[in-house]
Amino acid sequence: MRRVPVSLGQRSYHILVGSSLLQELGRHCSRFGLASKCAIISDSKVAPRFGSFIVQTLTDAGFDPRMIVVPAGERSKKLAEVERCYLALAKHRLERKSFVIALGGGVVGDLAGFVAATYLRGIPFVQIPTTLLAQVDSSVGGKVGVNLPAGKNLVGAFYQPRLVLCDSATLEPLPEREFRAGLAEVIKYGIIYDAPLFRRLERDLEKILARDKTVLEPIIARCCAIKAEVVGQDEMESGLRAILNFGHTIGHALEAISKYGRWLHGEAISIGQVAAAEISAELTGLPTAEVDRIRLLFERAGLPVQTRLNSSQRTKLFDAMRLDKKTSGGEVKFVLAKRIGQVIWGQKVPMPVIRKVLDQR
Amino acid sequence: MRRVPVSLGQRSYHILVGSSLLQELGRHCSRFGLASKCAIISDSKVAPRFGSFIVQTLTDAGFDPRMIVVPAGERSKKLAEVERCYLALAKHRLERKSFVIALGGGVVGDLAGFVAATYLRGIPFVQIPTTLLAQVDSSVGGKVGVNLPAGKNLVGAFYQPRLVLCDSATLEPLPEREFRAGLAEVIKYGIIYDAPLFRRLERDLEKILARDKTVLEPIIARCCAIKAEVVGQDEMESGLRAILNFGHTIGHALEAISKYGRWLHGEAISIGQVAAAEISAELTGLPTAEVDRIRLLFERAGLPVQTRLNSSQRTKLFDAMRLDKKTSGGEVKFVLAKRIGQVIWGQKVPMPVIRKVLDQR
Repeated sequence: MRRVPVSLGQRSYHILVGSSLLQELGRHCSRFGLASKCAIISDSKVAPRFGSFIVQTLTDAGFDPRMIVVPAGERSKKLAEVERCYLALAKHRLERKSFVIALGGGVVGDLAGFVAATYLRGIPFVQIPTTLLAQVDSSVGGKVGVNLPAGKNLVGAFYQPRLVLCDSATLEPLPEREFRAGLAEVIKYGIIYDAPLFRRLERDLEKILARDKTVLEPIIARCCAIKAEVVGQDEMESGLRAILNFGHTIGHALEAISKYGRWLHGEAISIGQVAAAEISAELTGLPTAEVDRIRLLFERAGLPVQTRLNSSQRTKLFDAMRLDKKTSGGEVKFVLAKRIGQVIWGQKVPMPVIRKVLDQR
Repeated sequence: MRRVPVSLGQRSYHILVGSSLLQELGRHCSRFGLASKCAIISDSKVAPRFGSFIVQTLTDAGFDPRMIVVPAGERSKKLAEVERCYLALAKHRLERKSFVIALGGGVVGDLAGFVAATYLRGIPFVQIPTTLLAQVDSSVGGKVGVNLPAGKNLVGAFYQPRLVLCDSATLEPLPEREFRAGLAEVIKYGIIYDAPLFRRLERDLEKILARDKTVLEPIIARCCAIKAEVVGQDEMESGLRAILNFGHTIGHALEAISKYGRWLHGEAISIGQVAAAEISAELTGLPTAEVDRIRLLFERAGLPVQTRLNSSQRTKLFDAMRLDKKTSGGEVKFVLAKRIGQVIWGQKVPMPVIRKVLDQR
């Protein structure tokens, strides 16, 4: 088992990465001195697999858990589901020292985290991410929230869990496409922060795709550690944290214009990262050989690296970029790479450059 | 003008208490370097009086304000109104550096504060409390939130404003009953923290009831300063902050069993404070002469000090106390007074003592 510390003063916590961690959940929760009542928020895909096991291990440790199941999929990340969770917590009489466990992927973590952040003005929260994407990205850093009809993640909070358990057993049933989509965030950490990690991914990609635990676990732990380092320096996203959005400006816009139906998040940011790399070659001197290595690694991971847009789609894409939460004064800012392992944020990119890169597709 | 600092590290801010402050709102907001887009959340009673003036002063200062009006009354403190506000903010394209102004009483402040705390994971927030209760209590300390069918304030956050403006002009149109209800919180500060304030209230009550600004403004500023001191020592309510709930255990329960229809909050906690004083005489040695002074001051302020309950109502009252957010392990805890100006929190009170005090009524 690997233990990744997330240093945020009084809100510090640990991410545990390993096998057979679920069995120890009750014991871990006992150490926090929490009340016995708790709620497990999960979705209709994950709950049938791991739900009753988790309920049992918590009950054995003296807790009184209540299971709350939401429909699987992004559409559950909405206020109506938040409200349904609140009502279930009230019915089960959760108190301030009770806690919420998120058991699922990013959607469940974001939803359950927002519920925990706002119920009784915030009750303790434990994350059990069950997708690769959630383990390396959304479960680290305390961003929780839900979507509005007007946009993704428009409502939320910064709220840190007490504990995150990344159990590799939960990745076993993950569909191939979802696993590969998670790799898009793994590759991102190499590009933005860690050239040796990028080289390790180039070298070990086949073993990773075979979900070889001995290779995968240290990589997951390393990704968590990178995100923890970045978030530890900039919890509220006033500067450095922006680098985590490499590839996300175009990626989010692609998701938005396709109404979140065509690409998984990891697929959209795969296209976005390759585009950002190409823009970087134009503006920040990223060597074209490195652009090629980036494109090739995404391709080898089975991820899309380009998309064709007609002119009406391109107009929509630009509009969507301008609507992004990270917009300031209506200007679109990018994270760009200088080299693999080193990026700079807050870069204004002239529209013609974005257009040129998109036209090559 | 009086300036009360609220010291909360990076989240520190000032409360300004005085006359003609509304005129300077635009100038104050300009100093924070915020984006031009902002939203004013107000209610159907306050918006017609002060709304267009506020919009004008903000527009003159270069801001682009959008007015959002909710129905007046506690019933607007619900998730459906939160959602309506979110949609209006999205439509007006508020960004992270945009801000929300709460213009109204406690309901508007709690609702707008929660909207600001959670929109884009938190955007800046300015409070303009327009009731005595909101000026001395709910606008200070960062508690924001809304009700659920299962209970009051079950959903919320701790979220500090950038600035609070208490303009005595906004109190002028306040109905007499609401003004007196606000005094219940003013008297509370004397009991829990400041014996000289309590004596000042005994001495100057007539001038206060006549809303004499020269008397009222320093008292409002003193109440804000007391709350700021308490909150500054215990923002997240892990200890000392509990003293602010003097009279609230029974008060909240009375509000709950009457479905928030019979008493204003200030009236319910007036009854609750007198009951807590009587329990204090039994358990923590509050002299009966001081219980009498407390009861008399509430009476002189035109506030209820007792209520008759039949046995079914009493059962409901006890149930409601046990459901209170501040419950821990199912046990009801009280704030009790040792003397006027000095209280202790977390006191277990045996049910027979509560019953005895209520039976005297």
